[in-house]
Order: sequence, then structure tokens, then C-alpha cells
Amino acid sequence: MDIDFIYPYSHTVSHLKSSDIRDLMKYAIHPGFISFAGGMPNNHLFPVDETEEIYHNLPEDIKESAFQYGPTTGMPALREAVKKYMKTKGISFDTHDVLITTGSLQGIYIISELFLNPGDTVLAELPSFVGALTLFKSFQARIEAVPMDDNGIKPEALKQAYEKNPHAKFLYVIPNFHNPAGLIYNKERRKFLLDFIKEKQLILLEDDPYNELFFDNETETLTKPVLGTADTKTARQIIYAGTFSKILAPGFRLGWLILPKEIMNKAEIIKQSLDACSPNFSQVIAEAFMRQGYMHKYLEKIRPEYKIRRDLVLEAVEKYFPSYVKYVKPKGGFYLWIELPEDISATKVLDYAIKNGVVFVSGKSFAPDDSLTNAFRIAYSNVDLHQIDRGIKVIGEGIREAMKTA
Amino acid sequence: MDIDFIYPYSHTVSHLKSSDIRDLMKYAIHPGFISFAGGMPNNHLFPVDETEEIYHNLPEDIKESAFQYGPTTGMPALREAVKKYMKTKGISFDTHDVLITTGSLQGIYIISELFLNPGDTVLAELPSFVGALTLFKSFQARIEAVPMDDNGIKPEALKQAYEKNPHAKFLYVIPNFHNPAGLIYNKERRKFLLDFIKEKQLILLEDDPYNELFFDNETETLTKPVLGTADTKTARQIIYAGTFSKILAPGFRLGWLILPKEIMNKAEIIKQSLDACSPNFSQVIAEAFMRQGYMHKYLEKIRPEYKIRRDLVLEAVEKYFPSYVKYVKPKGGFYLWIELPEDISATKVLDYAIKNGVVFVSGKSFAPDDSLTNAFRIAYSNVDLHQIDRGIKVIGEGIREAMKTA
Repeated sequence: MDIDFIYPYSHTVSHLKSSDIRDLMKYAIHPGFISFAGGMPNNHLFPVDETEEIYHNLPEDIKESAFQYGPTTGMPALREAVKKYMKTKGISFDTHDVLITTGSLQGIYIISELFLNPGDTVLAELPSFVGALTLFKSFQARIEAVPMDDNGIKPEALKQAYEKNPHAKFLYVIPNFHNPAGLIYNKERRKFLLDFIKEKQLILLEDDPYNELFFDNETETLTKPVLGTADTKTARQIIYAGTFSKILAPGFRLGWLILPKEIMNKAEIIKQSLDACSPNFSQVIAEAFMRQGYMHKYLEKIRPEYKIRRDLVLEAVEKYFPSYVKYVKPKGGFYLWIELPEDISATKVLDYAIKNGVVFVSGKSFAPDDSLTNAFRIAYSNVDLHQIDRGIKVIGEGIREAMKTA
Repeated sequence: MDIDFIYPYSHTVSHLKSSDIRDLMKYAIHPGFISFAGGMPNNHLFPVDETEEIYHNLPEDIKESAFQYGPTTGMPALREAVKKYMKTKGISFDTHDVLITTGSLQGIYIISELFLNPGDTVLAELPSFVGALTLFKSFQARIEAVPMDDNGIKPEALKQAYEKNPHAKFLYVIPNFHNPAGLIYNKERRKFLLDFIKEKQLILLEDDPYNELFFDNETETLTKPVLGTADTKTARQIIYAGTFSKILAPGFRLGWLILPKEIMNKAEIIKQSLDACSPNFSQVIAEAFMRQGYMHKYLEKIRPEYKIRRDLVLEAVEKYFPSYVKYVKPKGGFYLWIELPEDISATKVLDYAIKNGVVFVSGKSFAPDDSLTNAFRIAYSNVDLHQIDRGIKVIGEGIREAMKTA
């Protein structure tokens, strides 16, 4: 018999392995389970009827264009709509341009391909978005994790991390309603960040998917993108990633990069090889959704919905979790980040929870070095209201159980 | 004043440059121009009404799921629909599995990331699809171009190319209604290809976007995928890329890879970092389009439409082109490939054509080494019927002009 065929994998691929989260999702989509796992919008809050109406009323030639290929940089009218929208957040298009991407993760991929060689270092918050961490690793980058406190990245820790890695290619941050930490950067920390990248000539990749999901007016004033507060010169070091996934639909796979004009052409060439162009069908709908004022109305509708879920989760946490559990009250977004005493394993809590029909994601998934074993993320965005109390109760029991064997 | 900020590009990116075709598209979308440039379906033939009806009648929970994230491998029902469809073309899922991709170009990207290290060689037909060539180059691969004749890749040329490059990672081919060559592989050439990859243990990447666009029943029998004719062992060396771009809509950005099961997991991990999942909105519609039998009806409608355009183009070519021009009559697909005498430059013909309001793509765009300067591609798929005669007349004049100065 012939010997087996051996696939000649590239160096990049040979070290890839699937994430823990993929396995967790088996439970998350199980009908009997209460899931705090998925970092996704609520299934029942999508603008389904509005979208159908918008599409139905589009002129025939626009509908036809929705079926066709479009420019690699994106549908021109959508790019203009995004510019108009981002200008309201202080961003200037004298220095920057817009590239429509197939979700913001593709935007982060494009930036990584622009800058990362194997062995390069990326500075990132600890914890950070697992999708970005996995992506950076797929470029064979080293991730230097910089701890945060309740107000954002720690200044001293960032200074030290940079001193250790003066050739780091960029700093990746999520200043608004952080995934998974649930916090928002305060004004001082934003100013520190700007001053720091200016002094060090460091590139900042600002990922801002949750910008619009604030729960009160005071918090809204904090959500201004870092890019929107930078002077013209520093702005050239900042790349901003936005997305329609939280203000319309992840299923549209539509995001945008706001890039310094100097790097736009190379970003476009990379995008060309990735998928030629983003889905025109989604772009046509998203453009009308913005232009016709639906986005504003939709956000007014969903913000209180997520706030209710946050409140119910916090109420249940107060009721069922031991008092030694630490957390920051989220002022927007989808996530509550829980810290246990150092010797308690979140994996044990998770095991207990899964046995009892509840699932969430443990902290080490959000750490490039598998640290944060005593923390976990509760995503309250896509859970049914009436299940929150029961789900948090089970997790509370799990914490007490894990404490016994710690 | 401070010195300018310098972007720390990666090695991969520093050699990237934009394609000539991008510049040509300026003309192609210009209202006054007759364009034979874009390799795209006809704007007025998309199933716009059918799609709206399909979507309108979907159950509410399916509509909601269209807005949400989906599994990285694709919507389960769509994967099943693709399997059922591909089984009708002889493909077995004992050895293979389906991965839904964001267009077939993303599929080719995934395969390239799976196998290519910088400096690796890819064997490809000469001419070949410019999108794939650019993509392979973005992985810093060397492309060894293998000439074709009217029946497909030349056996002797392939043997020689392989002898020169015994460590080539894979062979990339488009056996059905080739882009840009317009030809279809005959039975003997398909058999040769299979025997050759079997003997050499070479991976075959079979790109098959035009499979369904045959113009007669006899040709239909030739379109069976190479993968569908392989024995179980050889099949494990074949990866097949399909797409909805020609049977539904490029604007949906939806394709599929049919992969040996052994490489499915790594392909999924790569896809996860590229865009997390393909657009669910498109997937939900495509699944219903297939399941409810719309695809079959739609193909019955569009095949004669493209055949009419092919006939009009050939008629005009007979009338206006000098007799020393060579071409193969396309039996399906979108393209007519024109070869001029060796000393005539297609760029000169193109310059003349553009000055007179007509555009097409010259041959060297489809050659990794800028050869094929005496050839060009006429895409007849997205041109208005009444413009074909006038457009081809202008190109004919351009050929005679170029001949004068050759």
C-alpha cells in the first residue's frame, strides 16, 4: 500500500490551533443552556422589518448594484456616509480616508498584514479581544500584554512594556466598553495615551465596536474616539476600526477602517487579495440605513434594552455572588468582567456552570499568555431577560464550590 | 519642524503595487464607454425580484439569524445544500468537507496561507486569473507559468515546469471556461492532469467559477469537476473552489471550498482570523435560492443570454478583425481570448480603443511575467447587446492601426 499523502503546510500554519471558545459555543447554541458566552448582539433586537422596508423601497438600479461586484475600497456612497458620521465624532478627513472592510476583524487583519513580520511585537491590553489576539498570533507576532485598571490601560505598565519593546509595531486598544473588561477609558487616561504615542512615535490601532452603546448621557461624552481628539500630526499615527456589527448586524459582515491617507493605497491592495470587495448587498442596505436616519432611531431603541440586561445582571450578581468578587459596573456595551480571589480557578466555576446548564468564557481566553485564570466574562447582550437571574445564581454557586476546593 | 512619521511596513507589503486593471476600471464604469473589461455577470440579469420574494417569505427566526454571526465554517443548512449540489457533479464527501468562504478569492487566499512560504513556487496556467496571480504574489510566491493550447494546459510544458520545480506547493487551474482564455479542457487533458498529479503527488487547486455557464448540452458533459472524476486517494490531493458569484450574485460575496477532511480544521482556523464568518445575510438567501429550486431556473434563463452575447461578439470579430487574428470559440463563460501576431502590441490596440470609447484588458495582465503582450481578453458578459458591434469594430480598427506601427 502507498504511504499516506502529507500536506506541505506553511510555517505560519503549522503552529495554529483552534480556540477554546469554539468548543464553548457548542453549549452556547444548545437550546437548554443559558448562555453568557457569545459577545454578540441580541437575536431579537435586529432591525429586521426596517431593513426589509429599506431594501424594498430602493430604486431598481441600486438593487442591481447590490448584486454586483463593487470597488475594493467600498461603495462610494457608503464611504461618504461613514465619513459624515465619523465627523460628528471629531474625526477629520484631511489626514484620513475610509476603507470599507468585511467586518472590523478584516480591518485588523489588513493592519496586521501592513505592519507585522514574524517575531514582531504588538502591545495589547490585558485582557483583550480574543479574535484580535488570535489574529496577531497567526502573523507569528509576539503579544506584550499591558494590564489595565478600572480607568483603562495602566500608564506605568505601558511605559515599562514599551521600554522592553521599543520596536513594537503598534498598540492595540479598545477604549469604549472594552471587550472583555467592560470598562471605559476616562479622560485622563485618553490624554495619557495620546501623549504617549506622540512622544514614542508609536502607532495606535483603536478598535471601537461598542462606541454607540452608552447607557447614560454623561458616559456618551467620554466615548469620543481617541483619533477624534488628536492633533493633525499625531492623528497620522492612529488607525481606527469601526463596525456595523453592533449598530446594524454582524451578519452583514461590514466594518470600516479610518486610515492615514499615506497607507490607504497599500491597505486597498491587501484588501483586493483578501476578498476583492466587501458584500455590496450589505453595503447598499447599510448606506440607506444611515442616510435615511434609521440608525439613530435604532440606537435609541437598543441602548435601553442592553441597559436593562446590565441592570438585571448586576442585581443578580449582588444577590448571588460572594462579596469578595470584584467587578466594575459597565457604563455601556455587552460585558461584565468578574475577578475572583487569585487562587480561585474560573475554569472550575465554568465546569460547575456547564454541568448546570450555564455557560460563559473564562479569563484566560482573553490573555495571550493564558494568565487571568481567576477572572471571567459575562456577556449579557444575547441572553433572555427571564434567564438572567437563574443563570447568575448558578455561576454564584459555582464560585462557592470552586472556593471550597481552592 | 519634526521629521515626517515613517510607517513601519512589513516585508510582505513593501513590494506590493496596484494592478493595471484597477486603472482600467475607471473607463469601464464611465457611462460613455463600451466596456469589455470587467469579468462580471450582467448587471441586468440578476435575480433581483426572486431574491426579494425568497427573503420576504422566510420565517422570522431565519431572518433574525441572517443578521447574526454564524459558524466560521458556514451556515449548516447552506453547507448541506452545497454538498447536495456538488454530489450531482460526482464529488464525494467521504473524503472531503465544505467550508463556506467570503467569495472564492478568499478560498484561494486560505489555501495560499495553508501552504505557501515566501519563495515557494505555484504552478499556474499561462494566462491565468489575475486575482489569483496577485494573491500568490502577495504571499511572496514565485509563479511558474505553464502555457496552454486550445484544449487546456500543455502536457509537455507541465512536465517541464514540474521538473524545474519539483517542490512546487500546488498547481492552480481553471478547467471550465477559463478566465481569461475562454477555453474548456477536453477529456484527454483532464485525464492527463489527474494522472500527472497522482504520479507526482502534487496538490491541485481547481477553481471552477464558470462551471454552470455552458452553451450547449455536449459541452455540459465536459464540465464535470476534475475532483469529481478522481479516485479516493487522488481526491485527497485536490481542493475545489466554487462560488455563488456567477450563479447568483458577486455582491453576496459567497463561495465555498471543498477540502480534504484532513485540512478542514486548519482552514477553519485561518478563516476565523480573516473575517470570523461569511455574511449570514447572503448565506440565508443563497440557501433558500438553492433549496427552493430557483438556481436551476435562473441558470436556464441566463445561459442563453450569455450565448447571445458570445454569438454577437464572434459575428463582429469575423466582420471587423483582420484574418491573422487567432481565437478559440468559447463554449461557455464570459470570455473571448484574442491572439495577435507576435510583434503587435495589445497595449497599442488598447490605447486606440480607449481614445475611441472602448475598453478591454490586455494579455500581460494575465501573465505573471508580463508576457502575452500580443494578446487580450474580451469579456462579453456585461456589455449591452446593441453596443457589441460598435465596440468590436473599434477594436478591429485598433488592431489595424497597431499593425501599421509594428
